[in-house]
Amino acid sequence: MGIQRTPMSKMITPSDVAVWLKERDRFLIITHRRPDGDTLGCAGALAQGLRELGKTAYVLYNIEATPRYKRFVENYYAPDDFKPDNIIAIDTAAPILLPENASVYENSISLCIDHHKSNALYADLVCLDVDRASCGEIIFDILKALTDSISSTTAECLYVALSTDTGCFSFSNTTANTLYVASLLVEAGAPNKELNKLLFRTKTHGRISIEGMMTSGLEYCFDERVAIASITKEMMDAAGADEDDVDDIAAIPGSVEGVCIGITIRELSSPRDCKISIRTRSPYDAQYICGQFGGGGHKLAAGCMMEKTISEVKSALMEVLEEIFR
Amino acid sequence: MGIQRTPMSKMITPSDVAVWLKERDRFLIITHRRPDGDTLGCAGALAQGLRELGKTAYVLYNIEATPRYKRFVENYYAPDDFKPDNIIAIDTAAPILLPENASVYENSISLCIDHHKSNALYADLVCLDVDRASCGEIIFDILKALTDSISSTTAECLYVALSTDTGCFSFSNTTANTLYVASLLVEAGAPNKELNKLLFRTKTHGRISIEGMMTSGLEYCFDERVAIASITKEMMDAAGADEDDVDDIAAIPGSVEGVCIGITIRELSSPRDCKISIRTRSPYDAQYICGQFGGGGHKLAAGCMMEKTISEVKSALMEVLEEIFR
Repeated sequence: MGIQRTPMSKMITPSDVAVWLKERDRFLIITHRRPDGDTLGCAGALAQGLRELGKTAYVLYNIEATPRYKRFVENYYAPDDFKPDNIIAIDTAAPILLPENASVYENSISLCIDHHKSNALYADLVCLDVDRASCGEIIFDILKALTDSISSTTAECLYVALSTDTGCFSFSNTTANTLYVASLLVEAGAPNKELNKLLFRTKTHGRISIEGMMTSGLEYCFDERVAIASITKEMMDAAGADEDDVDDIAAIPGSVEGVCIGITIRELSSPRDCKISIRTRSPYDAQYICGQFGGGGHKLAAGCMMEKTISEVKSALMEVLEEIFR
Repeated sequence: MGIQRTPMSKMITPSDVAVWLKERDRFLIITHRRPDGDTLGCAGALAQGLRELGKTAYVLYNIEATPRYKRFVENYYAPDDFKPDNIIAIDTAAPILLPENASVYENSISLCIDHHKSNALYADLVCLDVDRASCGEIIFDILKALTDSISSTTAECLYVALSTDTGCFSFSNTTANTLYVASLLVEAGAPNKELNKLLFRTKTHGRISIEGMMTSGLEYCFDERVAIASITKEMMDAAGADEDDVDDIAAIPGSVEGVCIGITIRELSSPRDCKISIRTRSPYDAQYICGQFGGGGHKLAAGCMMEKTISEVKSALMEVLEEIFR
């Protein structure tokens, strides 16, 4: 898979992980910064699965876990005096993504389970499958190798992992395996109806309000191939919207039919502090555009920061866009 | 399953259908009025599957098929002079739902394949499974009983059927079977990435514009347990939106956190011609509310028409809502 390995890391399969877990005990599971449903759902599932096998397993407290996902993991948070024998990092591609309270473990991660191409191979053992849409699918393989029965609690956590990392099976990373594992999780008792309602079919007042303002104010240029949304601090305040409410909102301008480059400009703490998120359709390169302003990301989704007002940001972007469409 | 049968109809299983199809030829497949992805996707899949088995199979032209779905079925449209030996109605619960050009066949439907509880058992043979989220899952079972291999063309049509009837696997009707069949379809070559982008992740200019206006104008009452959206003809014109653009838009008011009753009032041809769509969360009964005005539907999703202006509609609804929340 073209991934460069440090001599430090040994790559292992889900079945290897199962054997490794069976032979050990006293696990501490670490999730990543700005935790999403995949890292938290996986951590909850792994802790629950290990406990069902009679092991002692905890999840390291993650201060950034939002109300949306923390209920799937908070029952497993480690007490302050827990002394683990084995540290497992989940869905965490690099040490820099470990939360602050995990820094003490940074050089002693026994195992990293991940699906990111960019995995820095910083753990002693690495179970990496970049073809999986979610880390949850790898955890599922590990648990299936450990036990015949997946409990409904474990299934629920894993369903959260799979469904949130694939936008309820609608993102382009969704594979036959994702859908197959999801079917087994629902069969094992994952309450998909309730979870889908909560995770995908409910919007906060703040979200619906900011979406309304944002879509009403969409600007188009370059023959409607570019759509630009601006979100001012004033709009956020008027909508009563917080960070959780604008999660993934940058997908909206790019979802308009015919639009190849969707741009979202959001004012942060001050009018001269903007976060720019760009989503493109192939062959347009979001990373290239953001790279011109010191940002980065992937080809179809990238971001950057600018110390400019919204209208200055637009002018700056126009120059790059003109070059692209010339 | 508590369904009343007429003495005319014989209930049969998907395997029975497979045997029946194998023994016959010259099929005409009929879809329902206001056709959705399930009826059209199923019709395309069944026609394709039968042709791959060397049979002659056509789909009856459906004048209401929208651009969104018609490409999955138009290759199979019957020539005017086609004289079928066997008529199959798909996903069509009652004769009244047959399109006008099917009326000539109304009393000679050999087989109806459906998943609606309300099926009127009007066909000679009925293959009905009300536990399936989509008719596509039943067609899949039939084709699997007929052949070992599902072609990528058939898989694509069936994926459209499954995914559109379940909101890309997010609606409460989605079961483990839906996800399992979807995984097999993707494995068989259904281009789920492209289809999801087209069907669930792309919005027309008209749609995004009408959504923006609608959500910006949401009104809340009864302690924000009720949300009301109004769509005037003027808004539709300003957005350049058509019927396709407002498909399922009634889900929006009900998707707001804390809202139990989501109401969408849409002005049709004149200011005194309104269509009301209501979505509720249990235990609130949308059918009861719409029933007060001569409408109907299901417990959590119902509709009615009123010859009133939008503001008169609101007043009329308020009376019923006050009674409910008293």
